[in-house]
Amino acid sequence: MSQPFRLVFALYPQLTQLDFTGPHEVLARLPGAECVLASAPGGMVESDSGLAFATVPLASVTHCDLICVPGGFGCADAMRDPVMLAELRRLAGGARYITSVCTGSLVLAAAGLLKGRRAACHWAWRDLLAEFDGVTPDAARTVRDGPVFSGGGVTAGIDMALTLLAELAGEAHARRVQLMIEYAPEPPFQCGRPELADPALVAQVRERLRHLVGPRQEAVRQAALALAA
Amino acid sequence: MSQPFRLVFALYPQLTQLDFTGPHEVLARLPGAECVLASAPGGMVESDSGLAFATVPLASVTHCDLICVPGGFGCADAMRDPVMLAELRRLAGGARYITSVCTGSLVLAAAGLLKGRRAACHWAWRDLLAEFDGVTPDAARTVRDGPVFSGGGVTAGIDMALTLLAELAGEAHARRVQLMIEYAPEPPFQCGRPELADPALVAQVRERLRHLVGPRQEAVRQAALALAA
Repeated sequence: MSQPFRLVFALYPQLTQLDFTGPHEVLARLPGAECVLASAPGGMVESDSGLAFATVPLASVTHCDLICVPGGFGCADAMRDPVMLAELRRLAGGARYITSVCTGSLVLAAAGLLKGRRAACHWAWRDLLAEFDGVTPDAARTVRDGPVFSGGGVTAGIDMALTLLAELAGEAHARRVQLMIEYAPEPPFQCGRPELADPALVAQVRERLRHLVGPRQEAVRQAALALAA
Repeated sequence: MSQPFRLVFALYPQLTQLDFTGPHEVLARLPGAECVLASAPGGMVESDSGLAFATVPLASVTHCDLICVPGGFGCADAMRDPVMLAELRRLAGGARYITSVCTGSLVLAAAGLLKGRRAACHWAWRDLLAEFDGVTPDAARTVRDGPVFSGGGVTAGIDMALTLLAELAGEAHARRVQLMIEYAPEPPFQCGRPELADPALVAQVRERLRHLVGPRQEAVRQAALALAA
């Protein structure tokens, strides 16, 4: 493995911060890790819950070994940002690993980086992946397809990152990190994915997400068309 | 519940960011939540993995409904910071909930806020809680004792926060949030607490933490003496 091993977290306004802070906590513990926060224009990027992060412009990053794209309320705008998509393509071209959490896989797909690949996504948005030619949604919590590691919604990033860490630094190291971060989860409820939850609860969450459906469908449609052109 | 409901995350240099970004992601979804990042001096605070957060001075926060103290490599220094401890006491005095994640409970204890209470802590440091007169370490992942909610190491903050959210906003809301953040964890390994892990693995992690033992024992000893004076 090259030393340092540069990981770029490609952020954008209104991302969901836990999508990347979870993997960051895990992957920063890779020996030789150099973590970089970047965004298309650089500067401060605010999450959809109001946490702000300082970023460098993606264009200023010459190369990376791993790129990670989180999801979030702003993913539709990210799918429409030509600078974001071009920089993702450039960096991914030289990277060993291309990764996403939650709706970050829609952004990777919009950049044309998932063609011929299976990928995970947040359960409520997974079907949108199939709108991209050659992209296959996968309901698993962590999905690996060649150099692409993707996680499901938000908290799945922790599971994805530990799986990736085992690949990068060996299973023994990943196990030490899992014990170090005391990752023996005990969710208070058994409703963390729709298959486990009461249908009424699923309907309530879908209702709360409903205002995002139109804009996201439109962003996906435009991005898929642009890729096909 | 008062509107807005102000949550203060009391940060300090070299905190572990996931200790608070996990609970922040969950608790920011409380209706009326106003999340404030604060530190003793204010300004930028860097985590032990290099993520930086903008904070206001704790002294500038007039009051809060809930205070949350994360753990991290810098917890020994935080236990020795008289401004941090005095401000925690002041804010906790007017708060409805006093919370911690990981070694954040040692900081709460150093501020005298856990006297007569049971509390959780990271497994490797839990015994240190007992050095404080009247504080009882509890091995549970989420511990509630009156107004004090504490979580075990790092990732336990997500479980603690969902439990707290159920108290604050009702179980139905907490279940919706759990589904929204797809919290149906699938850890790649079964080693997230020492009782589950191979003894050799536990020994390896303890060895890697060994350089922190002396300084933390000393910080706890000094803080416990100061409280007894």
